[in-house]
Amino acid sequence: MSQYVFGVDIGGTTVKLGFFEANGNVVDKWEIPTRTENGGEAILPDVAESIQKKMQEKGITKDAVAGVGVGVPGPVDADGVVHVAVNLGWGVFNVSETLSGLLDGMEVKTGNDANVAALGEMWKGGGQGYKNMVAVTLGTGVGGGIIINGEILSGAVGAGGEIGHIHVEDDEQDICGCKNRGCLEQYASATGVVRLAKRKLQGDEESVLRNGELSAKAVFDAVKAGDKVAIWVAQQFGYYLGKGLAAVAGVVNPEAFVIGGGVSKAGEVLFEYIKPYYESYVFHASRNVDFKLATLGNDAGIYGAAKMVLD
Amino acid sequence: MSQYVFGVDIGGTTVKLGFFEANGNVVDKWEIPTRTENGGEAILPDVAESIQKKMQEKGITKDAVAGVGVGVPGPVDADGVVHVAVNLGWGVFNVSETLSGLLDGMEVKTGNDANVAALGEMWKGGGQGYKNMVAVTLGTGVGGGIIINGEILSGAVGAGGEIGHIHVEDDEQDICGCKNRGCLEQYASATGVVRLAKRKLQGDEESVLRNGELSAKAVFDAVKAGDKVAIWVAQQFGYYLGKGLAAVAGVVNPEAFVIGGGVSKAGEVLFEYIKPYYESYVFHASRNVDFKLATLGNDAGIYGAAKMVLD
Repeated sequence: MSQYVFGVDIGGTTVKLGFFEANGNVVDKWEIPTRTENGGEAILPDVAESIQKKMQEKGITKDAVAGVGVGVPGPVDADGVVHVAVNLGWGVFNVSETLSGLLDGMEVKTGNDANVAALGEMWKGGGQGYKNMVAVTLGTGVGGGIIINGEILSGAVGAGGEIGHIHVEDDEQDICGCKNRGCLEQYASATGVVRLAKRKLQGDEESVLRNGELSAKAVFDAVKAGDKVAIWVAQQFGYYLGKGLAAVAGVVNPEAFVIGGGVSKAGEVLFEYIKPYYESYVFHASRNVDFKLATLGNDAGIYGAAKMVLD
Repeated sequence: MSQYVFGVDIGGTTVKLGFFEANGNVVDKWEIPTRTENGGEAILPDVAESIQKKMQEKGITKDAVAGVGVGVPGPVDADGVVHVAVNLGWGVFNVSETLSGLLDGMEVKTGNDANVAALGEMWKGGGQGYKNMVAVTLGTGVGGGIIINGEILSGAVGAGGEIGHIHVEDDEQDICGCKNRGCLEQYASATGVVRLAKRKLQGDEESVLRNGELSAKAVFDAVKAGDKVAIWVAQQFGYYLGKGLAAVAGVVNPEAFVIGGGVSKAGEVLFEYIKPYYESYVFHASRNVDFKLATLGNDAGIYGAAKMVLD
């Protein structure tokens, strides 16, 4: 068995790389800039060069490396074909084959970044011990990654786990980035939490949220301080997320939800607002699910990418 | 490779059995009564006896049989343990081990009946050619079975695909069998369609539905005849089912939905009412899904049970 594996997480601004032992110990991790100009044509050559440099630096030959896992911000099918990654300038092509060609035939596996991060959390993060789990990322948007029997659920065109656009409110007037109205993402993302707070602050209730910059963090800090407007926002957040995750559980019946992303920095207080609504909407067989916090932060992607190759 | 396989579908009234060649050709199919008295203790011995009798009748030895697949009306985990099957009087026990013990160690695999039927439709029914699909059964309730990469998604406690209790309406007053309000099943099952029709018929609009027995079939027959009340009911049905399936697609991103059960006898006219709502609520990556009718009817269970063993 090979001793080492690389995990690569390609983002719109930087590419994160990790060099791991097969047991998951990190030997080294670093970043390079993502060069998105000219349809992002330099991205994979840059990644290949960076990997080869690291191997030289460590005195490692190809035989000692199981392969390279790659997470991409876009839908990726089971063959490693990306179907448009807007933030990278990429269209449709086979990432695994292309990068493997640049790495002298080394094995490459590619997945959607949210799905890959979910695998990382299962392997070494908040989802350890579970084989059926849903990772939920509450960041600028709401992302999801679904693990069934220890494996990523990619779906037909790599859009498995795109739970941010599940419809949860019939009476929404604002339009979501996806052009629909009433998507989970409009209430449970960092952006959504701020939107809810702004809406409530149009009234004249007193609130510490009227001072300083409005952010999801500010809202949950104010919740802990007992601010009534912030608590209303947290309840709305919990209502929509609880309702949305109940629908997810009705489909895949997971053992656990692992919650990450910027909003999750508020900590376990989130669960107090999510669980009551989740439990009231979910089918009884999925009521006793575990709620956990993600623990790997921005490193979940490189861990999961590495794990894809080892599986 | 073994030449033959048995598929068994245990229902609350009858047990359906099928004796197949490994390529899926039916050699024989038959039924026996389900004896649910005394906690359903006679059910598996009856099944074992019926299988052994069939083998004697056909002059087949154990070596020629790959095994026995079983579908059960309740949640079944990956080890073959059923977690309460109310309609059979069963509590919690390992169905696969028990039946195998009664069959001289023959291989037995067990799954939830809706999931097993989904596998049957994929193998020999309306889902042929798909590896990622969702079977939706519109009967007394709304059942679901999810196939990912050709395999059943069972979930943590065998409740994967229980899509009938996804919440789709905030303003429902009637209570669902699961004790919640606003479940998909309250609108898209045969019972739900009749409930919607009764509600509309409380008004004084003319309708052919005022004559004769009210059923889902009567409603869709009246739709074809242009009856306005029936068309309103079909639109409500399509709205809720389209919205619910959009949520399902947001989770698993299937290639196809395969619609079966009593309501599906209305035929492809159903799709005209489901698709517009589905397309308006679904995340764009899942918009181009196929809608197909199930074709195996009540035999889907025995086909899928047999296929479980062959996989």
